[in-house]
Amino acid sequence: MSLTGVYDPANVFARMLRGEIPATKVYEDAETLGFMDLFPQSRGHVLVIPKNVQARNFLDLDPAAVAPLMLTVQKVAKAVTAALNPDGVVILQFNGAPAGQTVFHLHFHIIPRWEGEELKGHGTAPMADPQTLAALAAQIAAAIA
Amino acid sequence: MSLTGVYDPANVFARMLRGEIPATKVYEDAETLGFMDLFPQSRGHVLVIPKNVQARNFLDLDPAAVAPLMLTVQKVAKAVTAALNPDGVVILQFNGAPAGQTVFHLHFHIIPRWEGEELKGHGTAPMADPQTLAALAAQIAAAIA
Repeated sequence: MSLTGVYDPANVFARMLRGEIPATKVYEDAETLGFMDLFPQSRGHVLVIPKNVQARNFLDLDPAAVAPLMLTVQKVAKAVTAALNPDGVVILQFNGAPAGQTVFHLHFHIIPRWEGEELKGHGTAPMADPQTLAALAAQIAAAIA
Repeated sequence: MSLTGVYDPANVFARMLRGEIPATKVYEDAETLGFMDLFPQSRGHVLVIPKNVQARNFLDLDPAAVAPLMLTVQKVAKAVTAALNPDGVVILQFNGAPAGQTVFHLHFHIIPRWEGEELKGHGTAPMADPQTLAALAAQIAAAIA
């Protein structure tokens, strides 16, 4: 999929927002949702998405929706840090398949890093155990300031 | 440097903001600056930083400064896309050395991607030719909406 194109409402995050498939939520407000990545590149890998806009990527996003989205990214990144005490945190967002994007509803990755631990590959990491994800989500949610 | 610590005003981006070392600017407003990365991971690699806050990373940033910073990231990412027509764009921000951070003034990377072209390594890419960077900066600046 190229950088220009039409939003496909059948994408997996749109289905999650409609409640058609489950999400392991860590934070939600009127405009944004944070949830555990099902294929985490490291322990505590969270995604943050806008709820009410049809944006494939960050280039597409209505500028009015930028602030609420990025304030949630910051809030959740701080909570991941407080809850899991990583050595570093990567914030990452792909626009277009050649950049690494696999789901075409805008999402920001929050990926904790630990010294000496490589990231699992984006697109090759195994699916996480649901109970492990739920426990991490509860730990991160409890640290939201 | 860990995720917690004190902002060091001798960092290279703070020196750039004080005019002590040059920057190849693509966009500037009252609160933010966009400039060419001196060690580009791909053609058109731009950095966006806040000007008036002492934030080592995104976790540190005063929430009031999030919106202006991210609106500039979006504006510049759109201009990079319009000017250079990449197949994809990566937006990337490192918090802490173990995550990949090398300069401890908050910065967002905007990295264009082209099909079949690998990125040069972060921290190992060669320094760009100043004239090439200036030409790219002019091309991107002309595409700012």
